[in-house]
Amino acid sequence: MKVVLLSGGGGGARFARGLAAALEPGELTVIGNVGDDVEILGLHVSPDLDSLLYTLGGLIDRERGWGRADETWAALESAADWGGENWFKLGDRDIGLHLVRTQLLGSGVPLSTITASLSDLSGVATTRAPATDDRLRTHVVTPAGRFPFQQWFVGRGHRDEVDAVEYDGAEQARPAPGVVDALEEADAIVLAPSNPYLSVGPILAVDAIREAVERRRVRCVAVSPLVGGAAVSGPAARMLTRMAGGATPAHVAGCYEGLIDRLVIDESDASAEAGAELVVTRTVMSDPETERRLATVVLEVACV
Amino acid sequence: MKVVLLSGGGGGARFARGLAAALEPGELTVIGNVGDDVEILGLHVSPDLDSLLYTLGGLIDRERGWGRADETWAALESAADWGGENWFKLGDRDIGLHLVRTQLLGSGVPLSTITASLSDLSGVATTRAPATDDRLRTHVVTPAGRFPFQQWFVGRGHRDEVDAVEYDGAEQARPAPGVVDALEEADAIVLAPSNPYLSVGPILAVDAIREAVERRRVRCVAVSPLVGGAAVSGPAARMLTRMAGGATPAHVAGCYEGLIDRLVIDESDASAEAGAELVVTRTVMSDPETERRLATVVLEVACV
Repeated sequence: MKVVLLSGGGGGARFARGLAAALEPGELTVIGNVGDDVEILGLHVSPDLDSLLYTLGGLIDRERGWGRADETWAALESAADWGGENWFKLGDRDIGLHLVRTQLLGSGVPLSTITASLSDLSGVATTRAPATDDRLRTHVVTPAGRFPFQQWFVGRGHRDEVDAVEYDGAEQARPAPGVVDALEEADAIVLAPSNPYLSVGPILAVDAIREAVERRRVRCVAVSPLVGGAAVSGPAARMLTRMAGGATPAHVAGCYEGLIDRLVIDESDASAEAGAELVVTRTVMSDPETERRLATVVLEVACV
Repeated sequence: MKVVLLSGGGGGARFARGLAAALEPGELTVIGNVGDDVEILGLHVSPDLDSLLYTLGGLIDRERGWGRADETWAALESAADWGGENWFKLGDRDIGLHLVRTQLLGSGVPLSTITASLSDLSGVATTRAPATDDRLRTHVVTPAGRFPFQQWFVGRGHRDEVDAVEYDGAEQARPAPGVVDALEEADAIVLAPSNPYLSVGPILAVDAIREAVERRRVRCVAVSPLVGGAAVSGPAARMLTRMAGGATPAHVAGCYEGLIDRLVIDESDASAEAGAELVVTRTVMSDPETERRLATVVLEVACV
């Protein structure tokens, strides 16, 4: 069977690993968020695509939750000594990847081609694609001003409340090659337990992707990023509360109106009702086994 | 007194350190070769300017003779894993500098401004300037073909004999700001014990620099890179033999016809005659003390 997952990094990437484990090699395609891509020290950094690569490829630092295991930080320290920016943490091995990607982008190779090539080199059997090869950048509107995503998220420690999220470039952005085909040929579509505004939203902001999900003939299942009304990590609950009026499964479902058939929620949110049929399970992923168990539940829901 | 040195990296940089030690802070200006600059993994690398910075700033790896001490290599290894080039060795700390320079160049800051800023940050009191902010790249013509400098020097281990050296872009290259002024205001001009074709040649290939040296009213003293008819390191002797007909002080002086008043040579070459007045001393630099002693001799010769 063919499954397409729309995902950010972090919990989305761990869920992707669970899905990959529950499926046969090659059955999973992950469409990754590029709204939080950023240029640091002249390097094109794609945090969500890389979290997917590092998680699926077994390279992720499990304790830190981002970047590579056994990482060192000499280049960034040196750059700072020479007056360079160091607010965004990039390890040496991570920089090796960014150098290769940035050089290829500079010579005109599309991000999707590079992303596929990196997957091949890592031996990851899951197809990984950016939502778009075009420039699409998430910005947040806050009481303190409008910020590019990483400047708010990392630079300001996402301390400002968010009144609106904007996806600059989304109107002109075309889906990356193969993305719409994958959605049309999928036996199931899944939205990862990622932030609806910051991770899945920028993917769905590409019109042709949203339309492909809207006109699906298979089930689309979302996994709520909430556990007991709070996000496992990050600002999802705060953002839902301020922008949607609450942090319940109903509010998550509201973000995906017309796009999902089922919403998988954690048992701690089980009393809730929502604009999609709810499926209650344990959604907290603490290790590969719980990742895979959640993935199996989602696949059962998706493929009935 | 004001002294201007034209220098490559390696022995030239060690000689620059000797001059800096023999002079008062701020009295030395080094004009560095940029003919061997190269783009690696999208990074603008300036090997000679950096050898000068690292040597003058006490950051150089003394055993290796290039790059930084206490260096690590994780980024380059990672880049290679992701399909990037790794024929040109760049350490992590070194990459930190290249990232900063490349980002600044990309935003339109001239190389000379960046070079000065890096000197300031390192605490080096010696003024360091590239010969030009324009693109000037050394190429070698060999029986195996014409190669960009680093592709021949590093990539092919400079195994091919050289029939000619060409400085692409030199005709259009303007001297970097301050370079001609420094030459005109100098009390002495010195050509470092660097390769005449590959290190000093690309500097003198900038017309306005050559002309400023030609019309000097002070002495210009060159230090021969030869010891007993051989180069301390690198292909200088082989190149002199093939292109100038021999590897003696006379052949070194021939490279600098009309440009120098004295040629300082090693005692092992003392029987030679040349087209410039010869000064015999011990030119091998094995530590800061011998660097400084050679520099003191050169200054005495230059300032009589």
